[in-house]
Amino acid sequence: MDSNNVVIGVDFGTDSVRTAIVSAADGAEISTAVFNYPRWKDGKYCDAGRNQFRQHPLDYLEGLEYTVRQAVLDAPPGTADKIAGLSIDTTGSTPVAVDRQGTPLALLPEFRENPNAMFILWKDHAAVREAEEINALARSWGGVDYTRYEGGIYSSEWFWAKLLHVLREDPSVAKAAYSWVEHCDWIPAVITGQTDPLTMKRSRCAAGHKAMWHEDFGGLPSEEFLRKLDPHLTGLRARLFEKTFTSDVSVGTLSSEWAHRLGLHAGVKVGVGAFDAHMGAVGGEITPYVLIKIMGTSTCDMLVAPPNDLGNRLVKGICGQVDGSIIPGMIGLEAGQSAFGDVFAWFRDVLMWPIEHIVSQSPLLDTNAREKIVEEVTESLIAELSREAANVPIDESGILALDWMNGRRTPDANQLLKGAVTGLTLGSDAPGIFRALVESTAFGAKKIVERFRSEGVKIEGVIALGGVAKKSSFIMQVVADVLDVPIKVPRSEQTCALGAAMFAAVVAGLYSSVDDAKTSMGSGIETEYRPDPQRAAKYRALYDRYTRLGEYVENEVLRIRRQE
Amino acid sequence: MDSNNVVIGVDFGTDSVRTAIVSAADGAEISTAVFNYPRWKDGKYCDAGRNQFRQHPLDYLEGLEYTVRQAVLDAPPGTADKIAGLSIDTTGSTPVAVDRQGTPLALLPEFRENPNAMFILWKDHAAVREAEEINALARSWGGVDYTRYEGGIYSSEWFWAKLLHVLREDPSVAKAAYSWVEHCDWIPAVITGQTDPLTMKRSRCAAGHKAMWHEDFGGLPSEEFLRKLDPHLTGLRARLFEKTFTSDVSVGTLSSEWAHRLGLHAGVKVGVGAFDAHMGAVGGEITPYVLIKIMGTSTCDMLVAPPNDLGNRLVKGICGQVDGSIIPGMIGLEAGQSAFGDVFAWFRDVLMWPIEHIVSQSPLLDTNAREKIVEEVTESLIAELSREAANVPIDESGILALDWMNGRRTPDANQLLKGAVTGLTLGSDAPGIFRALVESTAFGAKKIVERFRSEGVKIEGVIALGGVAKKSSFIMQVVADVLDVPIKVPRSEQTCALGAAMFAAVVAGLYSSVDDAKTSMGSGIETEYRPDPQRAAKYRALYDRYTRLGEYVENEVLRIRRQE
Repeated sequence: MDSNNVVIGVDFGTDSVRTAIVSAADGAEISTAVFNYPRWKDGKYCDAGRNQFRQHPLDYLEGLEYTVRQAVLDAPPGTADKIAGLSIDTTGSTPVAVDRQGTPLALLPEFRENPNAMFILWKDHAAVREAEEINALARSWGGVDYTRYEGGIYSSEWFWAKLLHVLREDPSVAKAAYSWVEHCDWIPAVITGQTDPLTMKRSRCAAGHKAMWHEDFGGLPSEEFLRKLDPHLTGLRARLFEKTFTSDVSVGTLSSEWAHRLGLHAGVKVGVGAFDAHMGAVGGEITPYVLIKIMGTSTCDMLVAPPNDLGNRLVKGICGQVDGSIIPGMIGLEAGQSAFGDVFAWFRDVLMWPIEHIVSQSPLLDTNAREKIVEEVTESLIAELSREAANVPIDESGILALDWMNGRRTPDANQLLKGAVTGLTLGSDAPGIFRALVESTAFGAKKIVERFRSEGVKIEGVIALGGVAKKSSFIMQVVADVLDVPIKVPRSEQTCALGAAMFAAVVAGLYSSVDDAKTSMGSGIETEYRPDPQRAAKYRALYDRYTRLGEYVENEVLRIRRQE
Repeated sequence: MDSNNVVIGVDFGTDSVRTAIVSAADGAEISTAVFNYPRWKDGKYCDAGRNQFRQHPLDYLEGLEYTVRQAVLDAPPGTADKIAGLSIDTTGSTPVAVDRQGTPLALLPEFRENPNAMFILWKDHAAVREAEEINALARSWGGVDYTRYEGGIYSSEWFWAKLLHVLREDPSVAKAAYSWVEHCDWIPAVITGQTDPLTMKRSRCAAGHKAMWHEDFGGLPSEEFLRKLDPHLTGLRARLFEKTFTSDVSVGTLSSEWAHRLGLHAGVKVGVGAFDAHMGAVGGEITPYVLIKIMGTSTCDMLVAPPNDLGNRLVKGICGQVDGSIIPGMIGLEAGQSAFGDVFAWFRDVLMWPIEHIVSQSPLLDTNAREKIVEEVTESLIAELSREAANVPIDESGILALDWMNGRRTPDANQLLKGAVTGLTLGSDAPGIFRALVESTAFGAKKIVERFRSEGVKIEGVIALGGVAKKSSFIMQVVADVLDVPIKVPRSEQTCALGAAMFAAVVAGLYSSVDDAKTSMGSGIETEYRPDPQRAAKYRALYDRYTRLGEYVENEVLRIRRQE
């Protein structure tokens, strides 16, 4: 391989897009750029109380253009000419309604401000009822249970539930929607100029994990099933896709328009997209039976296993097992927690209320000081709480929380579930509650590890990626103590973008396999958190309480649902 | 009656003492004065994390002297000469260890800074295990169940549990303690110069509700029972008391020393003391089968019934039923919630954390502004939260809290129980949580009403007294909606002090009965909160969820206890 070759990985996260230009030889970072989605940052098109989270396609396109151009500018002169490939990852399931040309409806003038014409972000779960209907029908309709490769429970965070919800809610969008496209499919299609929804190269990762696509079914669920689910879906299957592609496959080269917009040459090969977590797992150097946890606002927990090991075994209650979704040729298994960093951010926001509603109005401060105070506290609060919480002893009869503030993704998806804080006394303070919230997210992580094991999938180690893994040694130590396994954190600050770059190198033909790219381009381990035996023992007792609290909350939700 | 006669009521509350000089003819307030306990305010001798709350006797004596002198100063010239009687009420059970002379040990030089030598405030419940032992022994020892007139469950907040805890914990106090005295017994004893613990006039109210005193038992629990409970108690019974007195009885007249210290004449008659809530119930014009709720940091819920109505019936799970504890000649029934306003203050303190730990250190503010900000937010936060919470709709599947942050007093006392907040989502904000906390305290109030009814004691109305009743129309409306009965709030701002003044008028011989004093001196009703039928219906559904959450928490506590 020409050691001068460079590749680009683009990582569309929840709040921002990050682009990394890296050496294809050793993965060394040449330059990076980040762009915060401006409309999203302003809270546009979202309604947290209704669990509605939408993103405008322009946030993505502006971010792509800005970060690639900026990264090229920050790289040594001549770098642009050496770029061989570009691959992208995105959040998901994050689908959007498109017209016959594959244009997201929100890019048409008449839908410009309509949230239903925008990307439905992964964490939007307005579609709770639709998911329940899909689950009920899959079990009762007499045909194949299409949820079988997605853990047996379809989630409101996924493709069909989301699009059905929008089709029902918004007749104008229903009328104009020719097809539906995942964010990770749309970006490569746009920049290669191949947006026809009927021929667009669709990601195996997205389709297999979120759209009930499987080779055994001959692709997506049958027309009959979809029509039974809702007449709104009649005929849609034929306007979606039959084939899917792993991310070692090229979509094509940059269109001349986009080569120009990005400041790159038109020979750059563009790979099939995938979800951020899956490419991040590759960037974090996933190997068989090592659980990769991407710990950000939520978590995505991934494992790869050789197809021969798993046989026909299905792992119950996880988010899916898909051939080639992470590494081509391996079964990719995905699980995850619906909220992780979001739980801590939620508590921060609750605690910010007096500052935002009283301090920031106080005549004791001038306007400038008011804004700065809000900024200062927002930025430092979680770190300050962590510092204090680290000194709170583990108390087996103390505060116990449940981390289901955003429902539960795995094991056994249920978006109706809610969070709780119990064991409160008049002496309970903010750091004590914060510690219990951290412990609850660690217990949620343990539930996933235990499910894999009880389903016969061994777990030999844990690698942690993502913002929380890099930033909070307090939180990571609690997770290591609760899981009672060592947790390794890779050196790379951008494992998702690095993973995308690894795929770009394969797509560009610089490596013959993803494994080869991973071996050469991986960044190695930076930190290892080792569990403390005494704390681990205490947490085993607390974990039983967590389990019982979860059972109580789940029974309550069932009961309320039956009464409605 | 000479319409010029005036009387003094002194109300020792949790944070402060209030003295009112009122006309004995019509109860009109002539002057009042308040004194915040300085050592208590500084948090001295307390440890909230261990549920240890102690008060120094000097806080009481300084407060008594200051407020009486100040009230006299603020009254028209010559008022001091017209004062015929003085009665006091205090919190309780708030006992203290005394020496042979009846002097609280903390007033001796060697115990000056020892919290175990001070008054053990009503809300101290370090004595959880001692209360459990008392309950276990009362049921198992083969003799009479001494808890029978105290609802069948002895509480860690009460006399014997507290003194046993201190005797075990502190050998120096155990050695020096000749006897034990309730706050409401000690003040009249001090100011009349009759502090000998063997002859001190003890309050029927305190002894009957908190010390398992009953005529049927021949007074306090037997020497045999107490010795079995713990050898520390051997011989103590003989150094306590056999007789008790209702508050229409005079202890004597002011000693010349105290007449001088208070600026009063030595002919002022001093009544037997009682608990604040009980005298407050009289000040709030209690009548048979109207529940008086004193709503402050905790609640005290009282009812009077003619002895013939109740017969031998015992009401299970309340705090006690004692002949003459509220009105001489009537059975006084007492129940209450361990935390009411304290629940809201706790949430305020949790929310204050960022302001106290980040804002108040911020270099953006000068020292003066920092202090003022903390003060401003502390003072306004509950009102601001109430304002926002009033707009939060009642959501039957939303946030649900449990108000046991300070354990549960009634029904069925259990100080091991803890509070909870459930039904949390990423959209849950501070006002929403606050509303759920308010609702939880109202549900706790309903549990008491329902217990009275299920035990065959009718409740024909509710009168609300105390700080919360006077200050928060939002909270009062929620309580009215949840209880589904109208709630009346009397005009007087000082019902406890007014009640004490009514007793003082009887003690001074100005009225022949408490009922007569109450009729002449009562202040009438100021506000009535009427339940809204629609909200009441919604709350009935939520109440069932509250009941189940309580069952879950109670089972968990039992389970953890068994494992310990």
